[in-house]
Amino acid sequence: MTLILSNEEVERALGMGDCIAMGEEAYKALGLGKAATGVRGEILSPTGRDDALHSLLTMAGVVPGFGIGAVRINSDILTWPKTAHGLTREKVPAAPGGRYVGLVLLFSTETGEPLAIYPDGIVQRMRVGAACGLAAKYLAREDARTAAILGAGWQAGGQAMAMSCVRGITAIRCFSPTPAKRDAFAREWSEKLAIEVAAAPSLQEAVAGADIVACATNSMEPVLPPELVEPGMHVSSVKRLELPPETVARADVVFTHVKGAESRITRVEGADLSRETDAAKDRMTSAIRQGDMPTLPDLLLGRTPGRTGADQITMFLNYAGLGFQFAATGAIIIEKARSLGLGREIPTDWLTSALPS
Amino acid sequence: MTLILSNEEVERALGMGDCIAMGEEAYKALGLGKAATGVRGEILSPTGRDDALHSLLTMAGVVPGFGIGAVRINSDILTWPKTAHGLTREKVPAAPGGRYVGLVLLFSTETGEPLAIYPDGIVQRMRVGAACGLAAKYLAREDARTAAILGAGWQAGGQAMAMSCVRGITAIRCFSPTPAKRDAFAREWSEKLAIEVAAAPSLQEAVAGADIVACATNSMEPVLPPELVEPGMHVSSVKRLELPPETVARADVVFTHVKGAESRITRVEGADLSRETDAAKDRMTSAIRQGDMPTLPDLLLGRTPGRTGADQITMFLNYAGLGFQFAATGAIIIEKARSLGLGREIPTDWLTSALPS
Repeated sequence: MTLILSNEEVERALGMGDCIAMGEEAYKALGLGKAATGVRGEILSPTGRDDALHSLLTMAGVVPGFGIGAVRINSDILTWPKTAHGLTREKVPAAPGGRYVGLVLLFSTETGEPLAIYPDGIVQRMRVGAACGLAAKYLAREDARTAAILGAGWQAGGQAMAMSCVRGITAIRCFSPTPAKRDAFAREWSEKLAIEVAAAPSLQEAVAGADIVACATNSMEPVLPPELVEPGMHVSSVKRLELPPETVARADVVFTHVKGAESRITRVEGADLSRETDAAKDRMTSAIRQGDMPTLPDLLLGRTPGRTGADQITMFLNYAGLGFQFAATGAIIIEKARSLGLGREIPTDWLTSALPS
Repeated sequence: MTLILSNEEVERALGMGDCIAMGEEAYKALGLGKAATGVRGEILSPTGRDDALHSLLTMAGVVPGFGIGAVRINSDILTWPKTAHGLTREKVPAAPGGRYVGLVLLFSTETGEPLAIYPDGIVQRMRVGAACGLAAKYLAREDARTAAILGAGWQAGGQAMAMSCVRGITAIRCFSPTPAKRDAFAREWSEKLAIEVAAAPSLQEAVAGADIVACATNSMEPVLPPELVEPGMHVSSVKRLELPPETVARADVVFTHVKGAESRITRVEGADLSRETDAAKDRMTSAIRQGDMPTLPDLLLGRTPGRTGADQITMFLNYAGLGFQFAATGAIIIEKARSLGLGREIPTDWLTSALPS
């Protein structure tokens, strides 16, 4: 039987602590060549709407040690609205019922069979959060107690969970340019984490004195200017345009996510809306010389030293999602879902074939 | 609702005539930049078996004119057995019930929603056959009546259907080194096509005097030596190693499938079994200068002339599967399946999410 899980079931199966522990093992395997992440392919095409493109994004990864291969597919309607706070990239929930479309499919590396299918909503932020959490575990000061979170959306919540998992965080300050959003974030995460989570009235007030600054916005423009970065801080970022080169230049120690994870964008004629921001991302990658930076596996395997002094500024650039993260989290999800009896089952025969293909 | 179709249902929905007609439109769209095929990514990893690798292969394509994006995923256990007739690549049906794992997922380019999921067994050979059929429609002599088919497996059947669709074929001769296989092929396709299909006792007897020679084997070694190619023949091939460079050199007119369809292989450490054949394929691509050849879209759009004389030898090299073929065939399958009431439905909500991802 093949499991079909909902986001709610994935949430029950995948805790941040497990996710970080499994991630630690999986990133080490990746660094040792014992796991792999494939090329990330995106096809952009016009839609019936002048302001939107369809994006069909696929990524895959395999962790043979866990016996799991994963494919993640996103089929998104994308827009790039200009807001009062700059350009942002927004997914439109255009599927029936006002829903988003992102799927993870898990396969056995021993039999090939499809093991599970579930939406990617929960796991998407857990794996982003876990990677930032892992980096913070190795890079932030041991005595880090306060975290600033820039952004108040879905990914920002993942950062709150992850940073609280790896350090004894007692206070979080959230800044988002929209007061209602940062207030809602503070309410939600005060309750969930049972620590002090406050909405900061300004970027400066969020960041000043923080031990960890986690950028988790959907902004296409810089959010953390260099002058706000203080000695001893650990800074992480999940979007390529959040940190300007001047901010990255302030780091004493900087790690990027992984190397060699190729990405290819293919455009149908007329799918030009994202050209400007895609080019800006490429320029940023060059400007900060991201290709020369050591990676998270280098850090975990001790190939490149992390923080060596309390006053150093450390940074982690968590750019580009990896298929292999979905295999690593998938190993936890399927085991827990089975042991808890979660999900619906459909006959595996529906998804396999007596015919060679 | 999202449709789940079986191979049998896909077979009822997808006729070769429709497939070739839709392919003609879709390849023209591709040539005009109005459709796209994405990068093809494969991850190879070791399994518990010394003689087998796991392959996780993904390809995607979009035909916005049909409103369809498709992702095809194969999760295969692969072996490369040495037989008396040379090296072959064989998929092991290791999923429960002795089954193969290849899936197609269709998405709407307007709403993003998952429209259908089905195994790729039927469509896989229909799209290979249809591309060869289309090329033959434009390249074979109008008066072509006899076809030789080299190979007697699954793909060989697709060639029999396709060639019969585009020319008034009255006789087919099948050669495979295994007598039982070619005999079974002759019986099956005599009945299905209601024309004379014979098992040829030798390669020479199959090919001599044929108007069309369709190579559709799983051989990793050359199957058609140059001296067997006669003036006026149209030759097609579906596997990169079937035609040696000397055979390709005999063509007066040669077309390749498409250009610019990138392919990336990523290997987990120890996944080396296929290195030799993958390198041989790359050498073949260089040796025949495949990158310089005109493409099927060039042929259909009249950008490059096809056959201009009855004595010319024409060839079509149908190498590398394309994600976009699954979008084009998907458009037919979903329309026919809906109108015939085929398949099972699962709630689209199972595969979508209220959460952004």
